[in-house]
Amino acid sequence: MLKNMKKRWIATLLLVPLILFCFGGLGFAEDTVESNAIAINTVWTLIAAFLVFFMQAGFAMVEAGFTRAKNAANIMMKNLMDFAVGSIAYWAVGFAVMFGTSVFGLFGRSGFFLSTGDPTTGEGLWQFAFWIFQAVFAATAATIVSGAMAERTKFSSYLTYSVFITAVIYPVVGHWIWGGGWLSAKGMIDFAGSTVVHSVGGWAALIGAILLGPRLGKYNKDGSSNAIRSHNIPLASLGVFILWFGWFGFNPGSTTAGTNLSIAVIAVTTNLAAAAGAIAAMATVWVQFGKPDTSMAMNGALAGLVAVTAGCANVSPLSAILIGAIAGIIVVFSVEFIDKVLRIDDPVGAISVHGVCGAWGTLAVGLFAQEPYGGTNGLFFGGGFSQLFIQIQGVVAVFLWVALTALILFGSIKRVIGLRVSKEDELKGLDISEHGMESYAGFQIFTTE
Amino acid sequence: MLKNMKKRWIATLLLVPLILFCFGGLGFAEDTVESNAIAINTVWTLIAAFLVFFMQAGFAMVEAGFTRAKNAANIMMKNLMDFAVGSIAYWAVGFAVMFGTSVFGLFGRSGFFLSTGDPTTGEGLWQFAFWIFQAVFAATAATIVSGAMAERTKFSSYLTYSVFITAVIYPVVGHWIWGGGWLSAKGMIDFAGSTVVHSVGGWAALIGAILLGPRLGKYNKDGSSNAIRSHNIPLASLGVFILWFGWFGFNPGSTTAGTNLSIAVIAVTTNLAAAAGAIAAMATVWVQFGKPDTSMAMNGALAGLVAVTAGCANVSPLSAILIGAIAGIIVVFSVEFIDKVLRIDDPVGAISVHGVCGAWGTLAVGLFAQEPYGGTNGLFFGGGFSQLFIQIQGVVAVFLWVALTALILFGSIKRVIGLRVSKEDELKGLDISEHGMESYAGFQIFTTE
Amino acid sequence: MLKNMKKRWIATLLLVPLILFCFGGLGFAEDTVESNAIAINTVWTLIAAFLVFFMQAGFAMVEAGFTRAKNAANIMMKNLMDFAVGSIAYWAVGFAVMFGTSVFGLFGRSGFFLSTGDPTTGEGLWQFAFWIFQAVFAATAATIVSGAMAERTKFSSYLTYSVFITAVIYPVVGHWIWGGGWLSAKGMIDFAGSTVVHSVGGWAALIGAILLGPRLGKYNKDGSSNAIRSHNIPLASLGVFILWFGWFGFNPGSTTAGTNLSIAVIAVTTNLAAAAGAIAAMATVWVQFGKPDTSMAMNGALAGLVAVTAGCANVSPLSAILIGAIAGIIVVFSVEFIDKVLRIDDPVGAISVHGVCGAWGTLAVGLFAQEPYGGTNGLFFGGGFSQLFIQIQGVVAVFLWVALTALILFGSIKRVIGLRVSKEDELKGLDISEHGMESYAGFQIFTTE
Repeated sequence: MLKNMKKRWIATLLLVPLILFCFGGLGFAEDTVESNAIAINTVWTLIAAFLVFFMQAGFAMVEAGFTRAKNAANIMMKNLMDFAVGSIAYWAVGFAVMFGTSVFGLFGRSGFFLSTGDPTTGEGLWQFAFWIFQAVFAATAATIVSGAMAERTKFSSYLTYSVFITAVIYPVVGHWIWGGGWLSAKGMIDFAGSTVVHSVGGWAALIGAILLGPRLGKYNKDGSSNAIRSHNIPLASLGVFILWFGWFGFNPGSTTAGTNLSIAVIAVTTNLAAAAGAIAAMATVWVQFGKPDTSMAMNGALAGLVAVTAGCANVSPLSAILIGAIAGIIVVFSVEFIDKVLRIDDPVGAISVHGVCGAWGTLAVGLFAQEPYGGTNGLFFGGGFSQLFIQIQGVVAVFLWVALTALILFGSIKRVIGLRVSKEDELKGLDISEHGMESYAGFQIFTTE
Repeated sequence: MLKNMKKRWIATLLLVPLILFCFGGLGFAEDTVESNAIAINTVWTLIAAFLVFFMQAGFAMVEAGFTRAKNAANIMMKNLMDFAVGSIAYWAVGFAVMFGTSVFGLFGRSGFFLSTGDPTTGEGLWQFAFWIFQAVFAATAATIVSGAMAERTKFSSYLTYSVFITAVIYPVVGHWIWGGGWLSAKGMIDFAGSTVVHSVGGWAALIGAILLGPRLGKYNKDGSSNAIRSHNIPLASLGVFILWFGWFGFNPGSTTAGTNLSIAVIAVTTNLAAAAGAIAAMATVWVQFGKPDTSMAMNGALAGLVAVTAGCANVSPLSAILIGAIAGIIVVFSVEFIDKVLRIDDPVGAISVHGVCGAWGTLAVGLFAQEPYGGTNGLFFGGGFSQLFIQIQGVVAVFLWVALTALILFGSIKRVIGLRVSKEDELKGLDISEHGMESYAGFQIFTTE
Repeated sequence: MLKNMKKRWIATLLLVPLILFCFGGLGFAEDTVESNAIAINTVWTLIAAFLVFFMQAGFAMVEAGFTRAKNAANIMMKNLMDFAVGSIAYWAVGFAVMFGTSVFGLFGRSGFFLSTGDPTTGEGLWQFAFWIFQAVFAATAATIVSGAMAERTKFSSYLTYSVFITAVIYPVVGHWIWGGGWLSAKGMIDFAGSTVVHSVGGWAALIGAILLGPRLGKYNKDGSSNAIRSHNIPLASLGVFILWFGWFGFNPGSTTAGTNLSIAVIAVTTNLAAAAGAIAAMATVWVQFGKPDTSMAMNGALAGLVAVTAGCANVSPLSAILIGAIAGIIVVFSVEFIDKVLRIDDPVGAISVHGVCGAWGTLAVGLFAQEPYGGTNGLFFGGGFSQLFIQIQGVVAVFLWVALTALILFGSIKRVIGLRVSKEDELKGLDISEHGMESYAGFQIFTTE
């Protein structure tokens, strides 16, 4: 989808070089229908990018809110700095790997340092708008990992892997599916990135959490799991609202064109899936544990959002509700399974929300896609198994790529500089040990938390 | 206003079916002046809807910040879930009741499950954009009630009444005034919903708070009132800033057209009324109690915003300042009156801010409307009493409808499942009793609060 | 830049009076290429203004988060009310002083009470959009001062000087550089206001902090400085994210035209400078003190944003990275220097971030400007010293103007009503002494903080 749009853009932009704003005292050229359309698309793409940027704040609040007070400043720092180093890494390398001239459909090899950006031509100006939109996506993939590895990861290691995820691991997947690579050639549909962004983050989180090991005190000798309590539910909730808000940039914005009126449909499917995810997760946990847990309802909303991200432009509102609701049920059981059965300590449920529900959402396109929405029919609408089969290939291939590279990445970091802080530092909290500060100076906080 | 716009939209959209984005490999059709105008309007309406969505976070933060720590997770849950169930209810029923084919000007009867949405036609695509904008409004009406009933309402009851407010009570009023109903036919002006949204929420809150009764410890045996303290002023303030921010979607967005340049005027009147409301409330409380109370200044800003919502497209900046300032004064006395004289316990002042100031703002259109702004003159600008008279009818009719239906709704819930938690649960706090969790685990919090 | 744009606007708008929305039952006029372009620009400018408005929340959160719990409600109140009184003051006076008919290039003298706004003409409607965009900028300048004077300033004095800054001090500088005044005539480049907004705020903060004196307990008898701890790092971080988010309205929005596609470049330079600033500040403080301090990284991001604000439309992405990185280094040393050597107590580093880095960014345009971006070459790109020389003049002139007027303003306030609260009130905290409330009722907070 993005690819098609890009082609059309290039065509349009080459036709209308004269209409562009001429710098250097030449003043504005005349407005035309074409120049207006380009302006609408640029404005839309930029505003969507701003909203997606703001999701960084959402991720930071959710992660900090769901963990302990003694690590909150560290979490803020991670979420700020992964965006900072991610922006630079994606500018220098990642964008080229993702959208550069393709090498056998595997990765791009041109456009390093945003060399395609040119303020004097139409296509060159568009590259800037396109880059900022893609850059905020890249940073999202990196920041997802943060949650699963919270409260015990060395800050320097965190910085290091953020660079590699935004420069290499994420952009390669992006190339495959959005940059004209081999999965794109097969016709895989992942409109706004259930797989490209969320599963990439989720699977990297999975490997990271495994290599890192659980937080001290998380598991007892008999293998049973202890709940480590969230220190700030209003903060986490605010984060969820911010993420939902930002998702309206993430999904509808992925048209990168305001003249593409499917943005309206996408806003609706996105919203309904989130609503259904929250309700389903709440109901599931209510039945299971007797009370409607706030954290799980919030994770359900996020699960719905992640799941609908792949198919938001290809499914009906009703299908979006079903996709979201199923994601809301999945996330409850997945969190339980990863915590109790696999015994992987994922403090915020990032693996379940982004990895598992991202995979579910990607497969769901093969089931629920409907021609009037995005041109393709899934299994449930007479399209047979073909699209589903492509989606499965994509999910599996991306899992393998991320698992492998994340293993190499985290494994190397573990060997060279170490992934984890010392026991003493973990007990003291990363705020003091890694950053020499407290998050809530003056407040009386129980030392055991 | 909205109605007229809708008509014009239908005309334009029927004329230009060819200009739409064609899915399924057909690529984009040519851009035209008309398609660009539609894109501008769609982009504008969507972004405004996103901003209004974000107001949910604002309401959550204000309500939680102004109440006690032991109920904060419950409040977050309520504000998340009323939006979730409200979205689904408005999709299934509410939208049809509000904008469907009118039955005697009383309610709509078509368009259930967003059946008017169609991704293959211009008008069908517009329905999606229009729906998301209306859905976030519906959720606002429901969420207003939450504040007045905070800290003692059963969560299951809360969910139940949220469904009915977004499916029936609110949409019927919306139909009367925005959906071509009888008040719309009379010429009532409520541009962005001082009455449709805010008074509906405020009056439902009034009935709910009466039926629910005050929080434990709120009133002494002699009838005097105790202040129950706010647990997080920065959180509440952030909420107010978010609401003010979101109101720029609420009011200017209500043109549902970016090509309607009155959006600029509306942004100005909205902002000035809020500013004047904050100043007036601060001054009033400063004179009255000797200190400029932060909470009251924040409520003053919200009062100004609520009041200008009806007339934001019909009054001058100076009139907006007067409307907002008067609302800022009203809110201080109204909060006092409801608390001390009526002895209704409204923890965040929702009845005063939304109900009373919503009514004031609606009447104010009949006083301050000026032809150059929105085509009508109010009493102070030579228009006589006619518009004011219509506005009064609207305010009274909506009050009666909401009071009656809310009484039936809350009364039935009270009988069937109960509105209120047990005394023990209220003392423990709803976070633990209703959701089995704490909001601020690890923090030392005085148990009496 | 803004000036040129304004001229073009006037021309366009005079040519197309017929295309405008006609109120009062006349319905919409036909859409044209020109009316669409105007709609795009209006929508863009309004949305950018909304984002800049939201920066008020960011400033409030940063200031409160970096100071003590006992003053948080006061800080919220200041940030709410400076925007409120600033909006009214800028409406009544400031806008006229800034953009009115010029008196010898020194200040404007027409357009008081937004008298240029007219809902019935194209240019008149545009004035409303332009005003709201400018009003939120004016409030930013005022709110910057708040941080440096936190935790000890009398609230009534704060209100008073906010009025004068938004009505006179800021608008005069704005007139010089953006309103057709003498610095604009010389060709000074300050695209979005490193000097106009940030340095004005920063230098006023400098004078204010000097006249006010340090907080009790800040300096020991031997002149050594004590750290006064931040009470809420997550709150401050959220503020930084909000500011970064809002800056995407501040800088790209300063085209006040969505049809000016340089908005895309500006978004990129803005983002990269912020990222580089955060990284550079983190690295600097890490080397210097052995740990990557979260607060300083956040200040680094803000420093990068402030610095690139002047040149965001005139420099390449690589130059933006350099400008931001240098700002990130500067801010660390500047904070240290002001605190330890000058012994001026600036609780949040506002003087360094906004004053010093604002000056640096303004000068940097004279070094890094590149013709393809904004039409001018700086020293490093073959433009010689001329632009740099103009920039220096601007920086010096603004410093002198603000220092002088701020001295008169704060000096007068000090004499007439007093700038500072009593020692007892400062120890108790301004929340209780100035506003009669607590920020975190129920939480156990150490009384010494």
